Amino acid sequence: MSSLSSSSLPSSAAAIVLAAGMGTRMKSALPKVMHPVLGRPMVSHVIAGAEGLGLSPVAVVIGPDMAPVQKVVAPHPTVEQTERLGTAHAVLQARALMEGVNGTILILYGDTPLIRPETLHNMITLREQSRAGVVVLGFRPDQPGAYGRLVTDAEGHLQAIVEAREATPDQLAIDLCNSGVMAVDGSALFGWLDRVDNANAKGEYYLTDIVALACADGRLCCVVEGDEDELLGVNSRVELAQAEYIAQDRMRTAALENGATLIDPETVYFSHDTVLGRDVMVGPFTVFGPGVTVADGVDIKGFCHFEQCTVASGATVGPYARLRPGAEIGVDAHIGNFVEIKKAVVETGAKVNHLTYIGDARVGSKANIGAGTITCNYDGYNKSHTDIGAGAFIGSNSSLVAPVAIGDGAIVGAGSVITGAVDADALAVARGRQESRPGWAARFRAAMQAKKK
Amino acid sequence: MSSLSSSSLPSSAAAIVLAAGMGTRMKSALPKVMHPVLGRPMVSHVIAGAEGLGLSPVAVVIGPDMAPVQKVVAPHPTVEQTERLGTAHAVLQARALMEGVNGTILILYGDTPLIRPETLHNMITLREQSRAGVVVLGFRPDQPGAYGRLVTDAEGHLQAIVEAREATPDQLAIDLCNSGVMAVDGSALFGWLDRVDNANAKGEYYLTDIVALACADGRLCCVVEGDEDELLGVNSRVELAQAEYIAQDRMRTAALENGATLIDPETVYFSHDTVLGRDVMVGPFTVFGPGVTVADGVDIKGFCHFEQCTVASGATVGPYARLRPGAEIGVDAHIGNFVEIKKAVVETGAKVNHLTYIGDARVGSKANIGAGTITCNYDGYNKSHTDIGAGAFIGSNSSLVAPVAIGDGAIVGAGSVITGAVDADALAVARGRQESRPGWAARFRAAMQAKKK
Amino acid sequence: MSSLSSSSLPSSAAAIVLAAGMGTRMKSALPKVMHPVLGRPMVSHVIAGAEGLGLSPVAVVIGPDMAPVQKVVAPHPTVEQTERLGTAHAVLQARALMEGVNGTILILYGDTPLIRPETLHNMITLREQSRAGVVVLGFRPDQPGAYGRLVTDAEGHLQAIVEAREATPDQLAIDLCNSGVMAVDGSALFGWLDRVDNANAKGEYYLTDIVALACADGRLCCVVEGDEDELLGVNSRVELAQAEYIAQDRMRTAALENGATLIDPETVYFSHDTVLGRDVMVGPFTVFGPGVTVADGVDIKGFCHFEQCTVASGATVGPYARLRPGAEIGVDAHIGNFVEIKKAVVETGAKVNHLTYIGDARVGSKANIGAGTITCNYDGYNKSHTDIGAGAFIGSNSSLVAPVAIGDGAIVGAGSVITGAVDADALAVARGRQESRPGWAARFRAAMQAKKK
Repeated sequence: MSSLSSSSLPSSAAAIVLAAGMGTRMKSALPKVMHPVLGRPMVSHVIAGAEGLGLSPVAVVIGPDMAPVQKVVAPHPTVEQTERLGTAHAVLQARALMEGVNGTILILYGDTPLIRPETLHNMITLREQSRAGVVVLGFRPDQPGAYGRLVTDAEGHLQAIVEAREATPDQLAIDLCNSGVMAVDGSALFGWLDRVDNANAKGEYYLTDIVALACADGRLCCVVEGDEDELLGVNSRVELAQAEYIAQDRMRTAALENGATLIDPETVYFSHDTVLGRDVMVGPFTVFGPGVTVADGVDIKGFCHFEQCTVASGATVGPYARLRPGAEIGVDAHIGNFVEIKKAVVETGAKVNHLTYIGDARVGSKANIGAGTITCNYDGYNKSHTDIGAGAFIGSNSSLVAPVAIGDGAIVGAGSVITGAVDADALAVARGRQESRPGWAARFRAAMQAKKK
Repeated sequence: MSSLSSSSLPSSAAAIVLAAGMGTRMKSALPKVMHPVLGRPMVSHVIAGAEGLGLSPVAVVIGPDMAPVQKVVAPHPTVEQTERLGTAHAVLQARALMEGVNGTILILYGDTPLIRPETLHNMITLREQSRAGVVVLGFRPDQPGAYGRLVTDAEGHLQAIVEAREATPDQLAIDLCNSGVMAVDGSALFGWLDRVDNANAKGEYYLTDIVALACADGRLCCVVEGDEDELLGVNSRVELAQAEYIAQDRMRTAALENGATLIDPETVYFSHDTVLGRDVMVGPFTVFGPGVTVADGVDIKGFCHFEQCTVASGATVGPYARLRPGAEIGVDAHIGNFVEIKKAVVETGAKVNHLTYIGDARVGSKANIGAGTITCNYDGYNKSHTDIGAGAFIGSNSSLVAPVAIGDGAIVGAGSVITGAVDADALAVARGRQESRPGWAARFRAAMQAKKK
Repeated sequence: MSSLSSSSLPSSAAAIVLAAGMGTRMKSALPKVMHPVLGRPMVSHVIAGAEGLGLSPVAVVIGPDMAPVQKVVAPHPTVEQTERLGTAHAVLQARALMEGVNGTILILYGDTPLIRPETLHNMITLREQSRAGVVVLGFRPDQPGAYGRLVTDAEGHLQAIVEAREATPDQLAIDLCNSGVMAVDGSALFGWLDRVDNANAKGEYYLTDIVALACADGRLCCVVEGDEDELLGVNSRVELAQAEYIAQDRMRTAALENGATLIDPETVYFSHDTVLGRDVMVGPFTVFGPGVTVADGVDIKGFCHFEQCTVASGATVGPYARLRPGAEIGVDAHIGNFVEIKKAVVETGAKVNHLTYIGDARVGSKANIGAGTITCNYDGYNKSHTDIGAGAFIGSNSSLVAPVAIGDGAIVGAGSVITGAVDADALAVARGRQESRPGWAARFRAAMQAKKK
């Protein structure tokens, strides 16, 4: 959500993203880091943050059978951790991918998607300027509970990370906790990892142990502090919902600060890349899926759903409008209720106001599409195009059987099924003739009522 | 929401549910206990809790003119309290219905729908194991205010319940309050009730007085503690909304813990019996009415409304889909936007994607229903059936006039009104021929513009 | 939201509303006070409050280029503040409009829309009864921060208003803050304003200085306290959303207290003038735009959008119904899903249940409108009327081309395009004849599959 130019970084830096966790508590067939926040997988947020900082390479440590993760992080390389022997062991898997990295290596987590690029930038900068062995990202949670504690000296330098269960009462009273995120001297990281042992209750190799090793080597270790919010790790669907809430809150606040009105911000859902202009008015109950750009002065009347589409300035949309991928709504165009637009250009000032499906089409400027109009764009095998000219008027409940072209200024009579081209300025009608049977309805009712007895 | 096997209860137990309150503050024509929480009357939650514990009989004390309550609690017996002389008097009305009950009698309230079965189970168990005369359900509210206080001795045994307005300052400082819910020795209850008098400010017979009577008889009285949340009594629409919120929160948390993703849990509404599978994804703005089961891996795109329907695994629903009673959506089927399905089976892989009404119908496997299709199932007197074969393709904006059958693999041309059967693999078209009047639209515009001047 | 009769005011009073602020932080082309809360501009709330108290005149001080503000506050007079020299200077602009006002002049703010009429009434009453020079509206915010502090004497009389940046530590500890709202002796106000100077850091003329001047003149100055909520001033879209939330909360609570059920009050949006009857049930996700009245016992199934319409008792609406201006829904009528009603009367017991557009029409009592029916009310130039008789039955997917009349008890066959009048009790059908081509679909599929290879 924020961009920092990589040129501001003092030297080269790389990242290792740990994404091998099973996520058993998610109760899901999907790898944990693939669960979405703001419409994209959690791990993609972490990767995007690393890319925004210009980190290279960005290596991702995955678990067995995580092809979907490999796919979304590409072209960044992945390496599989086949045995789960602890975080130090996980980082070690990336050794070959970090060959030749002598600057900073950032250790990130695929299930911690909310971390701010500014925070990571501060960590890298501090490590490089202070020539620290390790910079740990600390935070002060409301309830320190089971988090590891960061033990610092009088000058605030990190001396050790102590697990909560092994901490003394004095250490437990420390409220500065370990987030797990670290910036490490890349020329020393793997040497320290080789020296980590698993002589602990769980028999695991802990990444946190490298702090003590670095201190023992006489290297400086430091702490950068982050907010609890940005360090939320997702291990359950409840935490996933919390992460989504925090991420939505950031997007909502940004939209308001940029000059959009959200009648109730808590009823508007953004994707990571949603762009809203100034004086955009958004009514309650609106969902922006990925890839949506809304220009200045657009009025969104709520109950709307958008995906991969654009809305030009001054347009009016909804309520109950669905703009699907490829919808391009023009300047001052009107899209009304129970209307679906897919892969279609609706040009300046055109109106598609009621109960309509427009797909694979162009609606010319100032054309008026009557209620209940359907572009019949699919025959079960092919998608075909409907072209509606500028100023055309399509009568209500018409079916336009694609491929078909309606000329500029043409009129289609209500209820018509149009299968052939309509010339500019022509009237086309295609419907049955009205016939009447006097008294039939009265007789029908009488028969039905008799039957009931 | 939780089930406890009745076999775990040490002996027989019964319940009296007080439901005679007028609910004046509700400002409603409906008896108070009939107002719904999670889609069913409050009193039904209390009855279901009692049933879940195997309590029998469950007698309901109602007020005059409460036939709707009688109906929803049936087959459990009701008895009418014709005069409002206090809670002890209300319980006394159920004496005849409790004939021969020597185990525990639980006193419950029809306007307290959130109480957990576990809590009641604990009360019954404690009463039977300790042979207590009365077990009172206490709680510690944020603001004890006007609640009666539970006066206990050093061992935590209950000595008396003191009304707030008659309490000493020391007693007012007690934060353990009376919820009104009690488990009483059934062989002693009515004897104590006979001895309750109305020598108090309001001239009412208070149920709470039986604690002092039981203690006076040398019987042990005890307290079980519950949460404030589960003891919310509903006396106004504001409190009804609070009860709904707490009940929804429990359902939402349970759905998340079972492995569903709710993008924003606070925008998803459950009924008491909603069942969601694993890896169900629910977008914002979704309402589950009563009787809904959604299988694993279903994608609900939000803005959806469900009642008495089933959705099979892998199906995609919404946004803006309404599944009404009797809708059965098959494996991998697609139900799209502005689509209503009622009493219809949509078989495996079928697609009903846009602006469609399917009622009293079968949509065969892999059939494709075009945008704007309507099954015309009603003639004002009869509902008739539409049968659409496997692999059939219904062109957009078609009307299928039931009773009618479309054969397997048949195609219906866009905009057709189908009144007779269509053979398998046939094409059926029923629409007018397209006619054109060149230049008509231009002349019409000119005439209209002339008229305006 | 509350009304106080002006007759209860002890004497005449007037108001000056400051509305000249640019609102730069709103990042909007719209003047700040024009941004809506509860569906009307903020300044209109302030004006309506003044009108409700019978204040006269009500003069509005606006900035340059604020014609929209002039328009919405009309017929109340406006005066332009061309230079921004401070609040005292702004009030001075209204001098000519306050000619002859000797009672109380209330100073109000166009960006403070939530102030309660009761609070203003209390200020005026206190000023007149105590013959105070100035009554200031104070409040005790959670974070007094940069607010001016109200310095009072032992009797609670106001001695001075001290800006936070000029306050002593003792003064900063005062938690009673200045809201800016004042009730001033109208015969003295402009004299004091003439004596305010701009000898301060910002070089502005501060209205707050009149308190010291009044005290120096030996006049009594007093404080009335308001809630922080009602004194929220809106300077950004975040604050606008906060104001909307507080205003919605008031409307929601009032609706609940009047006897409506809102399943989740936080998902129901009101306008300033929404009227809901008793036992109205409102499902989640409902928006009431301006001008909506809903009678007793109406069932609104959620996902609904209302504007300038009425719904009579016992009607059922939604889900997914949109009632637009001029919709009048009769007693026990049913409006169902994906239905839009505009400028139309739907009479007693009529049903419009699915995927329908009814505009510029009457639907007679007990008429039944089939799914997918469209009233074709617009030809690009004129809106025409559709009249549907009592008990008529309109088959699904019909188009009624207005102007057209369907007689009482008439039946229209499904899929018909009706262009001429249908007699009472007649059956009218207007559609193509069904034709069939056996085996065509099978041949089409074979051809398409061959093409794919």
